[in-house]
Amino acid sequence: MHQPVTIVGSGLAGALLACYLGKEGRTVELYERRPDPRSALQERGRSINLALSTRGLYALSEVGLADLVLQTAIAMPGRMIHHPNGSLTFQPYGKSENEVLYSVSRALLNRLLVEQAANFPGVTMFFEHRCQQVDLSTGRLTFDNGKQVFASVIVGADGAYSAVRQAMQRRERFDFSQEYLEYGYKELEIPADEQGRFRMEKHALHIWPRGGFMLIALPNVDGTFTCTLFAPYVGANSFVEIERQGIRAFFAREFPDAKYLISDLEDQFTSNPVSSLVTIRCHPWNVGGKAVLVGDACHAVVPFLGQGMNAAFEDCSILMECLRNQSSYEIAFSEYTARRKPHLDTLARLCLDNFLEMRDHVGSRWFVLRKKLSLWAYRLLPGWYRPLYVMVEFTRIPYAQAERIARRQSLLFAFLVGMLFLVLMGTMIGLFP
Amino acid sequence: MHQPVTIVGSGLAGALLACYLGKEGRTVELYERRPDPRSALQERGRSINLALSTRGLYALSEVGLADLVLQTAIAMPGRMIHHPNGSLTFQPYGKSENEVLYSVSRALLNRLLVEQAANFPGVTMFFEHRCQQVDLSTGRLTFDNGKQVFASVIVGADGAYSAVRQAMQRRERFDFSQEYLEYGYKELEIPADEQGRFRMEKHALHIWPRGGFMLIALPNVDGTFTCTLFAPYVGANSFVEIERQGIRAFFAREFPDAKYLISDLEDQFTSNPVSSLVTIRCHPWNVGGKAVLVGDACHAVVPFLGQGMNAAFEDCSILMECLRNQSSYEIAFSEYTARRKPHLDTLARLCLDNFLEMRDHVGSRWFVLRKKLSLWAYRLLPGWYRPLYVMVEFTRIPYAQAERIARRQSLLFAFLVGMLFLVLMGTMIGLFP
Repeated sequence: MHQPVTIVGSGLAGALLACYLGKEGRTVELYERRPDPRSALQERGRSINLALSTRGLYALSEVGLADLVLQTAIAMPGRMIHHPNGSLTFQPYGKSENEVLYSVSRALLNRLLVEQAANFPGVTMFFEHRCQQVDLSTGRLTFDNGKQVFASVIVGADGAYSAVRQAMQRRERFDFSQEYLEYGYKELEIPADEQGRFRMEKHALHIWPRGGFMLIALPNVDGTFTCTLFAPYVGANSFVEIERQGIRAFFAREFPDAKYLISDLEDQFTSNPVSSLVTIRCHPWNVGGKAVLVGDACHAVVPFLGQGMNAAFEDCSILMECLRNQSSYEIAFSEYTARRKPHLDTLARLCLDNFLEMRDHVGSRWFVLRKKLSLWAYRLLPGWYRPLYVMVEFTRIPYAQAERIARRQSLLFAFLVGMLFLVLMGTMIGLFP
Repeated sequence: MHQPVTIVGSGLAGALLACYLGKEGRTVELYERRPDPRSALQERGRSINLALSTRGLYALSEVGLADLVLQTAIAMPGRMIHHPNGSLTFQPYGKSENEVLYSVSRALLNRLLVEQAANFPGVTMFFEHRCQQVDLSTGRLTFDNGKQVFASVIVGADGAYSAVRQAMQRRERFDFSQEYLEYGYKELEIPADEQGRFRMEKHALHIWPRGGFMLIALPNVDGTFTCTLFAPYVGANSFVEIERQGIRAFFAREFPDAKYLISDLEDQFTSNPVSSLVTIRCHPWNVGGKAVLVGDACHAVVPFLGQGMNAAFEDCSILMECLRNQSSYEIAFSEYTARRKPHLDTLARLCLDNFLEMRDHVGSRWFVLRKKLSLWAYRLLPGWYRPLYVMVEFTRIPYAQAERIARRQSLLFAFLVGMLFLVLMGTMIGLFP
């Protein structure tokens, strides 16, 4: 169990896992295709921010980084809904100040994790090494610079287009699916004002739900907001159609406040790319004790629950638990697959469902009422009722179990409403005095 | 619309499509990795036979081959169930002699289609050309013998591991999934008797359902039966477990009649491979007017409804319809994708459902009773009620539509049973005299 571990990919999941392993005194080699984030200039137009929640924070606390990360994070206790008529509604996510999402910068967080991992004597990192081929029988990794290494244990933390997973795909009986939404996304930035201050409410995840498309915005520590426009690739309100109609005209009609805040809207819109939204599922996540996958490499999800990073961090936490409890990599990796796979299948489905909900219903009165009722029940009977969203974001209850609990709660709720109705009817016709 | 068409794969779908196109006077080049079936020796242990039904026969009749094929086919009007106690039950598939499946040899049928295609002056075939790479932007096909050709229109008829589809997979936003059953299959042969006669009922698809595993057998014109054993890869009654227990002991316990009929059971069992069962889904099936997929290349299904070949033949029929009606390859291919894809998604699901049904229920009394009731309702009210199985096998109703009709019928049936129940109750308590 103490062979060196070779991690492919020093993104969020790979760098965090290196911290976990380094902290336990293990030997780790980490290979990453991009330049070293500690010295490299930050990429422009990739200033994505992420919503960190309980699962992610728990994993960060296990490696002693939670407090450090929270220093650069902005708390978002709820959604700020921008209605078509210009009015705003604030919906809290939970019932207390602990139940908040944190907006963190992907670039900052990644640099912090890489710095931390580099501090452990057992961890060695190689940047600008793009893994091109993986031979799972020999453990040979071939990189684009011609270098070859032989790994005894490989962790694929190399994202949705993982080279390690592609090697697994060439084996017999490997289940795999990649499924794209007919929607893409484009990032835009709302700058800070002249004094470097936020130009909208800082403590909120802003959302402009518009039926067939939507805009969201998360705050950055420098006073800016990163906006993401989600729209179809073709048809009504598609990116093509928006450009045809004129970008400013479209924003003036649909997101007038956002248009006002982004002065170089047209420049940003034409220069930033449209990225695709993919769900990736596969099985198994390991090849014996030779290789294992974490994060997007085995379960990329669409970003509508903000759980991609949080689930990847939870992978690392659970993988470490399996490694500590089991006597061989093979048993540990198989246990990890068995424990995680069903929950990540559930998450993938919940994310797709939430896409439809955010797109079509978040702005509707009925949705707002349901959310209110649900939070009200949660505040009143916190031991008995917790909204599914709260369990996903603010607990570590495994996703599939959270869904089962939510289903049971709904049945109970329907039963109670039925009872209430009968009692009311009974009272009206004079059954009860 | 009259550019030459390059077909990759001269299996059943590719060879049939070459007949369709050849018959219309089009220019076709066909590349196939295997040797020419007209001269090659038949592969041993690959004597698979297939169940030809209405959809497949219809397509064969469009190219004028249905009668010729039926001359080498054996009609199977129903299932012969071999119960664990040795007794037999015959279940007819339909209500008339037209509603039968035909057992045909894959090798014979393929040779016949290749021979027929070769008769058309516009069709040229190249065997022992394994397509290794497809460049969809230039249309360049690279074969394992080093040859390169430039195709204006490519049809991928190259099966579940299609090279043409793999080129599509490397493009942006291509949905793809491959999903394996935890079950594999192994082929075995029941020889003819000394006089070359069948050693079981010839006009039936034989099935030994046993819960976690099953054996089936289809007749061949030479008096033999091709058996297929479906069993799990691991665990109880798996291939590994069967070999461990002893093959003859296992057959003696589970399939005593089959054991008696296969004298060299152990030899066959150890020398024939275990093959896997995969479901393949993808979308879209075409890249503009440059390339299109047919058959297993775009929708491999598990064989439990015997629809793989029939659906592939129907693909060819519908693709030809689209080509005749539309003015460009691009529009024709897009229409073909739109018309076929939802139905093949339904078929994939129905095949997986039928696997569970065949494995777990076919032998049970409740299943036999349901089948009887259903056929009885069909005989009585053929215009009003048709079992889903009958619509799949003996009509050309698109699969998803057949499923909707079946669902409606079930609701109606439940309603009628409810009504009947109320009337009976009413009579019992004396509401009706």
